[in-house]
Amino acid sequence: MLNKNQISENMDKFMKTLFPICRSITGKGVKQTLELINELIPLEIKYTPTGTKVFDWIIPEEWNINDAYVKNSKGEKIIDFSKSNLHLVSYSIPIKTKLSLNELKEHLFTIKEQPDVIPYVTSYYDKNWGFCLPYNQYIQLDDDGLYEVFIDSEFSNGNLIYGEFLIPGRLKEEVLLTCYVCHPSMCNDNLSGIVLLTFLASHLKKFPLKYSYRFLFIPETIGSITWISKNEQNLSNIKFGLVSTCLADSGNMTYKKTRSGDNEIDKITEYVLSSQAKDFKIMDFSPLGSDERQFCSPGIDLPIGSLMRTPYLSFPEYHTSNDNLDFIKIENLFDSLLNYLEVIFIIENNEIFKNLNPKCEPNLGIRGLYPSFGAGNKKTELIKAFSWVLNFSDGKHSLLDIAIKSKIDFKLIKKASEILLEKNLLILD
Amino acid sequence: MLNKNQISENMDKFMKTLFPICRSITGKGVKQTLELINELIPLEIKYTPTGTKVFDWIIPEEWNINDAYVKNSKGEKIIDFSKSNLHLVSYSIPIKTKLSLNELKEHLFTIKEQPDVIPYVTSYYDKNWGFCLPYNQYIQLDDDGLYEVFIDSEFSNGNLIYGEFLIPGRLKEEVLLTCYVCHPSMCNDNLSGIVLLTFLASHLKKFPLKYSYRFLFIPETIGSITWISKNEQNLSNIKFGLVSTCLADSGNMTYKKTRSGDNEIDKITEYVLSSQAKDFKIMDFSPLGSDERQFCSPGIDLPIGSLMRTPYLSFPEYHTSNDNLDFIKIENLFDSLLNYLEVIFIIENNEIFKNLNPKCEPNLGIRGLYPSFGAGNKKTELIKAFSWVLNFSDGKHSLLDIAIKSKIDFKLIKKASEILLEKNLLILD
Amino acid sequence: MLNKNQISENMDKFMKTLFPICRSITGKGVKQTLELINELIPLEIKYTPTGTKVFDWIIPEEWNINDAYVKNSKGEKIIDFSKSNLHLVSYSIPIKTKLSLNELKEHLFTIKEQPDVIPYVTSYYDKNWGFCLPYNQYIQLDDDGLYEVFIDSEFSNGNLIYGEFLIPGRLKEEVLLTCYVCHPSMCNDNLSGIVLLTFLASHLKKFPLKYSYRFLFIPETIGSITWISKNEQNLSNIKFGLVSTCLADSGNMTYKKTRSGDNEIDKITEYVLSSQAKDFKIMDFSPLGSDERQFCSPGIDLPIGSLMRTPYLSFPEYHTSNDNLDFIKIENLFDSLLNYLEVIFIIENNEIFKNLNPKCEPNLGIRGLYPSFGAGNKKTELIKAFSWVLNFSDGKHSLLDIAIKSKIDFKLIKKASEILLEKNLLILD
Repeated sequence: MLNKNQISENMDKFMKTLFPICRSITGKGVKQTLELINELIPLEIKYTPTGTKVFDWIIPEEWNINDAYVKNSKGEKIIDFSKSNLHLVSYSIPIKTKLSLNELKEHLFTIKEQPDVIPYVTSYYDKNWGFCLPYNQYIQLDDDGLYEVFIDSEFSNGNLIYGEFLIPGRLKEEVLLTCYVCHPSMCNDNLSGIVLLTFLASHLKKFPLKYSYRFLFIPETIGSITWISKNEQNLSNIKFGLVSTCLADSGNMTYKKTRSGDNEIDKITEYVLSSQAKDFKIMDFSPLGSDERQFCSPGIDLPIGSLMRTPYLSFPEYHTSNDNLDFIKIENLFDSLLNYLEVIFIIENNEIFKNLNPKCEPNLGIRGLYPSFGAGNKKTELIKAFSWVLNFSDGKHSLLDIAIKSKIDFKLIKKASEILLEKNLLILD
Repeated sequence: MLNKNQISENMDKFMKTLFPICRSITGKGVKQTLELINELIPLEIKYTPTGTKVFDWIIPEEWNINDAYVKNSKGEKIIDFSKSNLHLVSYSIPIKTKLSLNELKEHLFTIKEQPDVIPYVTSYYDKNWGFCLPYNQYIQLDDDGLYEVFIDSEFSNGNLIYGEFLIPGRLKEEVLLTCYVCHPSMCNDNLSGIVLLTFLASHLKKFPLKYSYRFLFIPETIGSITWISKNEQNLSNIKFGLVSTCLADSGNMTYKKTRSGDNEIDKITEYVLSSQAKDFKIMDFSPLGSDERQFCSPGIDLPIGSLMRTPYLSFPEYHTSNDNLDFIKIENLFDSLLNYLEVIFIIENNEIFKNLNPKCEPNLGIRGLYPSFGAGNKKTELIKAFSWVLNFSDGKHSLLDIAIKSKIDFKLIKKASEILLEKNLLILD
Repeated sequence: MLNKNQISENMDKFMKTLFPICRSITGKGVKQTLELINELIPLEIKYTPTGTKVFDWIIPEEWNINDAYVKNSKGEKIIDFSKSNLHLVSYSIPIKTKLSLNELKEHLFTIKEQPDVIPYVTSYYDKNWGFCLPYNQYIQLDDDGLYEVFIDSEFSNGNLIYGEFLIPGRLKEEVLLTCYVCHPSMCNDNLSGIVLLTFLASHLKKFPLKYSYRFLFIPETIGSITWISKNEQNLSNIKFGLVSTCLADSGNMTYKKTRSGDNEIDKITEYVLSSQAKDFKIMDFSPLGSDERQFCSPGIDLPIGSLMRTPYLSFPEYHTSNDNLDFIKIENLFDSLLNYLEVIFIIENNEIFKNLNPKCEPNLGIRGLYPSFGAGNKKTELIKAFSWVLNFSDGKHSLLDIAIKSKIDFKLIKKASEILLEKNLLILD
């Protein structure tokens, strides 16, 4: 179905195109990112003006950055935004000034434990400025003369923008798949989710689907708050969903459960992970993390899980310049994509049937579904699947429930149900 | 109560009498078997004519077999039904013909992995014929000349028959105990169930009982379907039940749960097995197996478990000529019988009481139930049992629940309840 | 808050004052004990006359003892009540007689397995008498001449007395804390509960409390039956409670659950024990034990657990002269007191809140609750606690539920809730 080489190559190319862009929660970087996604899937871009109240929050001014650097007393650029957009604290105010080292240090950020990386720092809601640099560079800054600080950023009334793509299915019920588009040059935390959802959407839109699938490409936190605020009337259409992030590192798959922990999406995703040979991890819900913090807030309480590889905060490259193109592997991202497709396969096919011949077993032999010579011990897995599907198609057990109970693969259970349906032994509940 | 030697000897004799008979789902073999059971317990034999519709099935023609063999080109009988009734595929059509080895082979059944056994094969619902033989014999058949095939079988309008025996108790509620009578010469799978239920019925009918006990001796699948179909109006009388099979091998006891898995019979049987020193196995329900497939079909859904030793399919002798008199041991069958009696003891005595003095403890001392000199640490198990029974006789906990909670043997809990009942401290709920 | 040295010293002094008193279920010993408690906390002493019916029981005559001994034929006192009040079986009738060794032996109690201890024996409801002595002494009694037995005890119409102390809180709902005052000179089983509850009450009465706290100092069994009988109309005020006993030995803490096992007091106490570094033990409810037998009888069924160290019957010193001042350690009793205070801290503070901004997260930054520079991985435990409290303050989860879910210490969860309450982000449910 999927051409692994072709898709991997395209994902790799797209990742490399997106990487250099300086994204933040507003501004040209997000817009450029959404336009690039729009070349692959038809994205509806939504605008929410600066100053709009979204629940407890207010859409901030749009922030754009042209240039930023720090020069030493010799006039040498020792920190240069044009070399890495992580050097600048996101949402830094414009400034042009000269400072002593001590004054400057109040605006410098490093990670002592990882002395060679540039950390990722933001200051969205406090008007401030700062630079990020490796600790090893930081400790070598000398105290001779003044440093020149230059930040050419602009704040303006503008818009918070996000992208949205709906694949309509037979049913109005929606599966929500969401990622965030607000981080500068980092791959696993941010871009991996964008690239995966773009290619997933691009693949799914070719097929007729039972459920509708809504893809969101939004700035984290303020973006999801805005989207929820503007779509509050339609949230009841959402059956369940997943937050997509950290999908290209070399770790095993991790599933973070929904707030209740017992939703159908929890059962489906845990089944997909457990039916593979590889190790995996299941985490309980916590209100720390990504946009599930908003979707699972108590007044919204949507069943949104998160399917990832190594979770944010659990890999040292997280929120540093080391979360770069070298850190990730496209084959891991492709493997993550396959996991998402497995999950969606079950979402689409997890029917509940009723046995139309519920009193004792139907005679499968006269329907050509049973071997002529009965030997008791020669039952194929398909014949066993017939028995399981017939017995538990009582209007209470879904095909996935039956697959779990029987320990027979979901795909074979589904195949058995299709044959039984064709023979008029089942009906959709 | 039970004379082990006497009963074992009688069971052994009965097993040996039943072994040679060629049983199938209809015909003289079943009839002869039921008549032999009827010599030990008064069996009501029920007839259902060929062609009768029972749910999705139709009662097949009655099948009887006089003789069957295959001769080689030298006229030697190389396969002879009269030497083992497993040689012939059950329900083979009559035939008299000569065939080349290649043509013959399409009708021969062997088990390569068990080269010295004759497999058990049936073809109830497809008009066909076949012979079964050891693989080692099969590979030595030579290609010189034609083989003569002779099967002197008869199909006729007749009846599906089964036997039924009800021991009426004080209550109309029934415990269903069922086994199948349709296998030719095989001991553990088939005869062990017949022999056990015959002697269990023969023993139980001597005592006044609380519940009614219904014993079924039926052809597997078509027999249980027929019985359920004819008794659909009375199924609500069935409290729960057990399928009896595979009860004479040397393995540990196994209990296969009812469909819901949380019925009283599940609790009782698991308690009986776990309160013995020996290992045992608890299996979840599956819709593969014996007549629980029909009793537990979603439109019938009776709480029927299965109490056995090594389950069908789990011992290599299953459905072969090796499941013979040498394979089983009567002492194992007797041990199985004791397990059934333990289960029935709890069924009969698992009352729910109400404490008539529920506010604080009653004064056991003035009723002669407590030692004069209290030393705190000298309580007998019986006195502890008094406390447990009094505390949990709240109309919600059965004596078995109390035995499980207290880890005091059910029989002592029952004895405590009897004494407390006599002292007017309890009342039946 | 607590002065460890001061309180330990006072508890030690009190324990030593109480130790020599000969207590029984009635009589001067109980009265004297209650008067000593009354010097530390204002105790209401309740009288129930001999002959009063309390549920299934009748208040016995008051028993007092002046002197008791056994002399050998040489006139030597070989057993002397004045040396240990355990020598006399409690509630022995008055007697003055001469007996042969064989006749005497019917009234002697020893423990062969612990040959050097005096056992503790009672005969409350059978008019009888007896002496207790070490087995090693018992086997050396010689058969020369008659023994003189003298017991100067008195039975009289009098009262069963117990002490009660209520600390009224803001709410009428009561936490019941109960211990027994009927054992003669034994420390861990009996006195440790009395001393702990006296000092706990003395400490708690200084503070404004949410719940009311009722302390009972009662004779075991007949005392709790009497109290329940006289207070039946008010039992619905009791939220839950604990029986206090065996609190000064060197074992780890043990919690014996309430009858249902899933009450809030179970959750609280298990949390307190599990949040310490030390080992601890959780026991299921059983109707054997102390006054929980009455409080948890099926017609009363109050949620009363028992928080102790090594349970009765589990330490060899139990109910012997070895359960003395040398056996216990005041530092263990103090540690037990701290455990009770931890439990009460959670009882008092385990609120259920509702998030007043339940749709998405509130903006903590504008309320000064979030650091200006966001770096994702720099969240303090307090900020995490904000997220947990906000997300699960949905009217269903208590602060303890949130502490358990989040694995964040209850005290920090409580602190977070206080700050959020102050910021008008929470409201009491």
